[in-house]
Amino acid sequence: MKTSTKTLYAQLQQHQKTMKTLSLRRLFEDDSHRNDRFSAETSGIYFDYSKNHINSETLKLLCKFAEHRKLSQAMSDLLSGKHVNNTENRPALHTALRFQGKPKTEQEFMVAEAKKKMSRLVNSIETQQWLGFTGKPINTVINIGIGGSDLGPRMITQALSNYKKNVDVKFVANIDGADLCDTLIGADPETTLFIICSKSFTTLETLENAHSAKRWIQQQGCPDKQLKQHFIAISTNLPAAKDFGICDKNILPLWNWVGGRYSLWSTIGLSIALAIGMEHFEELLLGAHQMDKHYATAPLQNNLPVLAGLLSFWYSQFWGCSSYAVLPYAKRLSKLPTYLQQLDMESLGKNISKDGEPINTPTGTVTWGTEGSNSQHSFHQLLHQGNQLIPIDFIMAKKPMSPLIHQHAYLQACCIGQSQALLKGKTLADAETELRHQGLDEASIKTLAPHKVIIGNKPSNTILIEELSPQNLGSLISFYEHKVYTLGVLLNINPFDQWGVELGKQLSQPTYQAIIGKESNTLWDSSTNSLIKKARS
Amino acid sequence: MKTSTKTLYAQLQQHQKTMKTLSLRRLFEDDSHRNDRFSAETSGIYFDYSKNHINSETLKLLCKFAEHRKLSQAMSDLLSGKHVNNTENRPALHTALRFQGKPKTEQEFMVAEAKKKMSRLVNSIETQQWLGFTGKPINTVINIGIGGSDLGPRMITQALSNYKKNVDVKFVANIDGADLCDTLIGADPETTLFIICSKSFTTLETLENAHSAKRWIQQQGCPDKQLKQHFIAISTNLPAAKDFGICDKNILPLWNWVGGRYSLWSTIGLSIALAIGMEHFEELLLGAHQMDKHYATAPLQNNLPVLAGLLSFWYSQFWGCSSYAVLPYAKRLSKLPTYLQQLDMESLGKNISKDGEPINTPTGTVTWGTEGSNSQHSFHQLLHQGNQLIPIDFIMAKKPMSPLIHQHAYLQACCIGQSQALLKGKTLADAETELRHQGLDEASIKTLAPHKVIIGNKPSNTILIEELSPQNLGSLISFYEHKVYTLGVLLNINPFDQWGVELGKQLSQPTYQAIIGKESNTLWDSSTNSLIKKARS
Repeated sequence: MKTSTKTLYAQLQQHQKTMKTLSLRRLFEDDSHRNDRFSAETSGIYFDYSKNHINSETLKLLCKFAEHRKLSQAMSDLLSGKHVNNTENRPALHTALRFQGKPKTEQEFMVAEAKKKMSRLVNSIETQQWLGFTGKPINTVINIGIGGSDLGPRMITQALSNYKKNVDVKFVANIDGADLCDTLIGADPETTLFIICSKSFTTLETLENAHSAKRWIQQQGCPDKQLKQHFIAISTNLPAAKDFGICDKNILPLWNWVGGRYSLWSTIGLSIALAIGMEHFEELLLGAHQMDKHYATAPLQNNLPVLAGLLSFWYSQFWGCSSYAVLPYAKRLSKLPTYLQQLDMESLGKNISKDGEPINTPTGTVTWGTEGSNSQHSFHQLLHQGNQLIPIDFIMAKKPMSPLIHQHAYLQACCIGQSQALLKGKTLADAETELRHQGLDEASIKTLAPHKVIIGNKPSNTILIEELSPQNLGSLISFYEHKVYTLGVLLNINPFDQWGVELGKQLSQPTYQAIIGKESNTLWDSSTNSLIKKARS
Repeated sequence: MKTSTKTLYAQLQQHQKTMKTLSLRRLFEDDSHRNDRFSAETSGIYFDYSKNHINSETLKLLCKFAEHRKLSQAMSDLLSGKHVNNTENRPALHTALRFQGKPKTEQEFMVAEAKKKMSRLVNSIETQQWLGFTGKPINTVINIGIGGSDLGPRMITQALSNYKKNVDVKFVANIDGADLCDTLIGADPETTLFIICSKSFTTLETLENAHSAKRWIQQQGCPDKQLKQHFIAISTNLPAAKDFGICDKNILPLWNWVGGRYSLWSTIGLSIALAIGMEHFEELLLGAHQMDKHYATAPLQNNLPVLAGLLSFWYSQFWGCSSYAVLPYAKRLSKLPTYLQQLDMESLGKNISKDGEPINTPTGTVTWGTEGSNSQHSFHQLLHQGNQLIPIDFIMAKKPMSPLIHQHAYLQACCIGQSQALLKGKTLADAETELRHQGLDEASIKTLAPHKVIIGNKPSNTILIEELSPQNLGSLISFYEHKVYTLGVLLNINPFDQWGVELGKQLSQPTYQAIIGKESNTLWDSSTNSLIKKARS
């Protein structure tokens, strides 16, 4: 660590010691305008970060650290297409995909062209011009892809199920054949279309599933020369996609300047466009673009993704937080935590700086969570009474997501009730009074009350979105993307590579050969050896 | 902490310092029988724990600690119905539910009686004697419950979808009306049956959804006097269930000696029995019972749940691990991590000992994960190159779960490849050689190689189940339940209460009143106040 970095760390460490003595309860009591001071709003997203262990001094110090890391410069480098992905020597231009207006850069032209192609495909399926091998229109689309080619489209399609068009869109990712087989139950081969999503057209899971899907439709009577009526590819590897039997005009391009975990914004978004219509896909892009503009222009101390990044940095570096929980109070956002796991952990789960130096301070934290209010009846016990500090993002929508409006009011009340409870806690005296009201004898009260004490003082953000619409969801995802980039800059990490995942892939190949009995390699440790033998038997 | 506890902690701390210097690679190189030494097997579950930072001395010390905590006594107390749930002064008798043989205890008689009732209900629906309001047989069952009344049945129904009978079983939990509304899309009121699961028959989410379901079926033409043909209740609150309109013979009992998170084994298992048939539900119970017997009789150092508990204790107390990942390499087990989140975190997320003393050592850790191989394309980057230590449970099945057998071999290879990669890592020299093979120039190699280094030395368990059958799944769940109980004993925590979740529930009530405009309470902090205002507008 450089001396200047050390100095700033030391200042923040010192400041943390002060903040630790000030409870959240106290911070609210001392400042009736705390909420105004520590909240910000843009593009349908209201970000309340007042229930955190911060004051204006904290933000000042954190912003100072951000300036030390040249955050503003890094933000403009990202958005202007500089090679911010230094280890792969290329830009990270997911923002170009949602650019609005006349294309000017090379990438913007490529995107505009690809979007036309996407639009044509969506239109031909929607208007039932695209026909299956027996002349029937398509009513089921199965997206075969994994990682970024799966999680984003899957999450968004569920989140926006209200906007569903006539086509059923399903997703298959896992190499486990049960994934494809279960998805094919009840599917009609005559009206089913597969989208094969693999940048390289070599991804193990995707290609194995694609070949199994092909065999299935062949066995169900599709003649070879009509296979092309049931497959679209999204890939840079044109020859391989053609070899598979997909015709030129049904292969959509992908670009190496879009990382896998950002690819929902690219042609990989085709399944989303088929599910909700191209017009709503455009709204999703628009929402994301609005957040991009906010990220590009708002001052740091009023910039939502920057603030969220600074807070995560504050907790991971100075409060010992090793994970954070995302709790969307919306059934249809139940896949958001899984989506954010990839975005956050694949980007920041590194122990080496972008300059190749080992990092000894904490880096990426674990992102986890499930939807509220379900989560309250599951793991919230640990959030309230456990002894680790876990910052939380509560997410809720203003408008109801169903006609059951009073249930939406309860949903909001549950969400707000939790952040309140985490902040306030319950004192021993309160617990005793409560038990006394219940008529317990003094001996029982003395025994039981300590178990009911809740320390409180637990931090959380609340993210209130206007409604679960394509546009607001676009803004929300873009918010998290830029938060992660901000953290990358603060941690001095390249958030766009993922070298760590290669080795496992490499080792699975000889392991596979050994399992199917083609190779007997004794280089493995005795555990691996024995597992291979058992798997084989 | 007592002196004797302190002494044992100090010994283990000292021993950890030694173990830290011995890499997993080294431990395997030094002992070609390591895998035999550190694996155990029972009831279709093979538990390989050799890829952990342990040697025989570690186990000796951990067992010594377990004896200090009187683990064996505590185990027999649990199984013999002692009041191990001391803060609620009752036994935790989930094991009685899966007891095999002639009932002897009071609880066993109650269980046998309830099972008969369950069986009768399942039979009448399966044989189409149970008819809806227009005389048609039931083909869709919607289970309305939350927490333990939802997660277990939901997870198992998905896991055992291969065993599916004629009835479609669906689940609704969330207070968000979108959950119920989305589930009702396409449902036929004439052939849909609801199971309302709430011990108290007052759980907010469950009762709101139950009332909405009732309104739906009424609006769809069901006459009031025939409502009883569409509702079953599982509850201890008979009067409330009857008030709702459910008739006596369709109310199944529940008992206060079964905690919510264990209730899948009780009458709450009705949805499982309807999904897979009573005979397979019995197999599930049998598998769990076999693990119970193993837990009761196997010596500590050969006892699967005990070993798993000791290892978690080792990592949480002496290696600073604050979370652990569950990675089932099986698509149909994708809900297992969410299920285990409740089991583990609700049981152990406490900061107070069972005797009411504050605990200053770590207690419950965060349980998280998603299914492999998907997870490899998401967060595994952090597992491989992040700088926190996260122990992992890999779970895989020997037998394929679909007819796509070669994909199963790949699935196994992916799983085994990951634990291998996490153990071995990749050295700088290896990374450089690799890049040289790819034809990179020396300058580029020097820049890039450090990013490809993987430290390795990351611990994991591999749990190999014979097949994803009701019996094996029963054993697996029971394994985790007893692991959690073991941890409770080691941490000196009562794992059966959950006092921490009360406050949030309490605070959501006045918050709801405020949102619907019935109350204007200014006691709230400015953040909560402002969120209520915004939610209301």
